[in-house]
Amino acid sequence: MTKPTPLSGFPELLPAQRIAELAVIDHLRRTFELHGFASIETRIVETLDRLAKGGEIDKEIYVLRRLHADDDSSDSGLALHFDLTVPFARYVLENSGRLEFPFRRYQIQKAWRGERPQEGRFREFTQADVDIVARDELGLHYDVEVARVMAEALADLPLPPMTLQTNSRRLIEGFYRGLGVADPHLVISIMDKLDKAAAEVISRRLVDEAGLDDEQALLCLRLAEIRTRDTSFVEQVRALGVEHELLETGLTELAAVIDGCADVSSDRFRVEANLRIARGLDYYTGTVFEIYMEGHESLGSVGGGGRYDA
Amino acid sequence: MTKPTPLSGFPELLPAQRIAELAVIDHLRRTFELHGFASIETRIVETLDRLAKGGEIDKEIYVLRRLHADDDSSDSGLALHFDLTVPFARYVLENSGRLEFPFRRYQIQKAWRGERPQEGRFREFTQADVDIVARDELGLHYDVEVARVMAEALADLPLPPMTLQTNSRRLIEGFYRGLGVADPHLVISIMDKLDKAAAEVISRRLVDEAGLDDEQALLCLRLAEIRTRDTSFVEQVRALGVEHELLETGLTELAAVIDGCADVSSDRFRVEANLRIARGLDYYTGTVFEIYMEGHESLGSVGGGGRYDA
Repeated sequence: MTKPTPLSGFPELLPAQRIAELAVIDHLRRTFELHGFASIETRIVETLDRLAKGGEIDKEIYVLRRLHADDDSSDSGLALHFDLTVPFARYVLENSGRLEFPFRRYQIQKAWRGERPQEGRFREFTQADVDIVARDELGLHYDVEVARVMAEALADLPLPPMTLQTNSRRLIEGFYRGLGVADPHLVISIMDKLDKAAAEVISRRLVDEAGLDDEQALLCLRLAEIRTRDTSFVEQVRALGVEHELLETGLTELAAVIDGCADVSSDRFRVEANLRIARGLDYYTGTVFEIYMEGHESLGSVGGGGRYDA
Repeated sequence: MTKPTPLSGFPELLPAQRIAELAVIDHLRRTFELHGFASIETRIVETLDRLAKGGEIDKEIYVLRRLHADDDSSDSGLALHFDLTVPFARYVLENSGRLEFPFRRYQIQKAWRGERPQEGRFREFTQADVDIVARDELGLHYDVEVARVMAEALADLPLPPMTLQTNSRRLIEGFYRGLGVADPHLVISIMDKLDKAAAEVISRRLVDEAGLDDEQALLCLRLAEIRTRDTSFVEQVRALGVEHELLETGLTELAAVIDGCADVSSDRFRVEANLRIARGLDYYTGTVFEIYMEGHESLGSVGGGGRYDA
C-alpha cells in the first residue's frame, strides 16, 4: 500500500490529541446530562429537499450516491447534514408524539461542509448543541437556562476565558421601528457587517441602501456601541431617546437574561449585553448570542445560538 | 414543514433507547481503555481507490459529491467507509512515524453500506473495533489478549450469554495440505458455506469443484464437526490421522488461545474451539473468531475478527 497523504479539511487526531478531545466531549456531555438534557443522535443524512433551501450553504452540501446503483430510488436525494439544527427539527417533527415537552436535548455529532480549504475551516467537524423545544410557547426563563448551561459547560474547560455576548432581536428591531426606518430587517443585515467594515461604510450603506437619514444612521451606530456587563445598557438605550413597544419588550427580556446569568459570570466566563450582536438575517426572533474566546477573536465566534419562535 | 417519514436502514433512537446505547458504548470504551487501548476516530471518508477493491461489498459503497461543485477536484473519489478496518490500516500507515508499536487502538464509530432494506441489516450502523498492530512480528499472546478483552467487554453487558468460537487458519489449511488437496483455499471457501448448506451439498462441491475424493471430503467434514470447550480438540484432530507441519502449528496456537482464555469462560461468556469457523476467504492468516449471542443465532455472528500477518 502506498503511503497515504492527509485529506485537506478532514483532520484526524493522534491518540494523545484524541484523549483531550474526549475529555472535552465528556465534560460537555456530563454538564448537559446533569441539566436534564437527553442525548440523541440523528442519522448523518437528510433528504436533499429538506436540507437545501437555496441558501448560501447549499453549495457546500455533500450528496450521496451508491457506487453501483442497480436501484437508486431509495437513495436518491440523500445528503450529509451541514449542522445539527435541521436534523433536530426534523427529528422532533417525526417523533413529536413520542417526546415529552418541553424537550431538552443535547447532540454532539459530526457535520460536513464541502468548504474550500482554508485556515480554521474544516470539511468534517464536531458540533455540540443544546436546545429546548416546546409544543407551544416557551417561557423566557428557558433563554436564561440555556445561557447558564453554556456557561457551566464552557467555564470549566481548560481553555482561555470566554465571553457570551447576548442581545435581543426584539430590542434592535424595536429600536429601528421606533426610529421610523422602513425596513428594519434590511438595517439588521447591514448592521451585522459592522465587525467587518468601518463605521463610515456601514453608515453610508444605511443611508444609500436602507434610506435612513444621517441622524437615524448615527443612532443605529450608537446603539451598536452599547456593551455592558450588567443591566446598565437599559439606561444607555433610553438615553438615545427612541421609543417603541417592541423595544421595551426587548429591553425587559435582555435585562432578564443578564440578571439571570449574573451569578455565573466569572473570570473564566463572562456574560455581556452586546447590542451589536444580531446573527445575520436568520430565523431568530428573540435572544441571540455569540461566544468568543479571549485572545482568539480572529476565529470568530466559537459558539452561538438564539431563540426562534414559530 | 410536512411530517417526515423515517428513512429505511437509517434507524434513529428515542431518548430512552439512546441512554441504553450510550451505556453499552461507555462500558465498551471503559473496558478497552483499562486494557490500554487508545481511542481514535478516523474521518468518515476514504478515497475510492483505497476502498473499492473489486470485492462483494463494492456495490454497497456510498460515494460523495458536492451539490454544486465549481471545482470538484479535491472531492473526487471520496466515499463513506463501510467498516473500520480499511480506515485503521490507512491511519496506521499515514501516522506510522508518530505511533508507538505494538499499537493498541479501539474505535467506536459509525459505518455505512448501501444495503437493500432487509431485516437486521442497516445502512448506518455503529461498529466497535479493537486491534493491536505491530511493526514486525506480533506474538501469539496478543491473540489471547484480544479474546480476553472481548470477553470482558461483552460478559458484563445486560445481554444474553455469548460464545466466542475460535479456530486457526493454519490448523485448517495445514489439515487440508496434509490431506493432500491441491487447492486448500478453495476448500476453505467451500467449507465456509457449511452453515448455509447441507453436508451432502458441501461434500459434492468438494469432490466436483476442488477435486477431492470421497475419503478426503469426509475427513474435511469430520474436522468441521469438532467443537470443544477445552483443548481436547487436539486429540480429536489427531485421531483423524492427518499430518502436516502447518497443522501442528495451528493445533499448538489454537490450544494456547483456548488455554489462555480458560479463566474468562463463564455462564455469560464461553470460549470454544470450533473447527468450522473460517471467516471466508479473507486476509486472515492465524487465529479467527466469531461471536454468537445465545438464542439469537439467526442474527449471525455479532462480532468477529482474527489475525492477519502481512
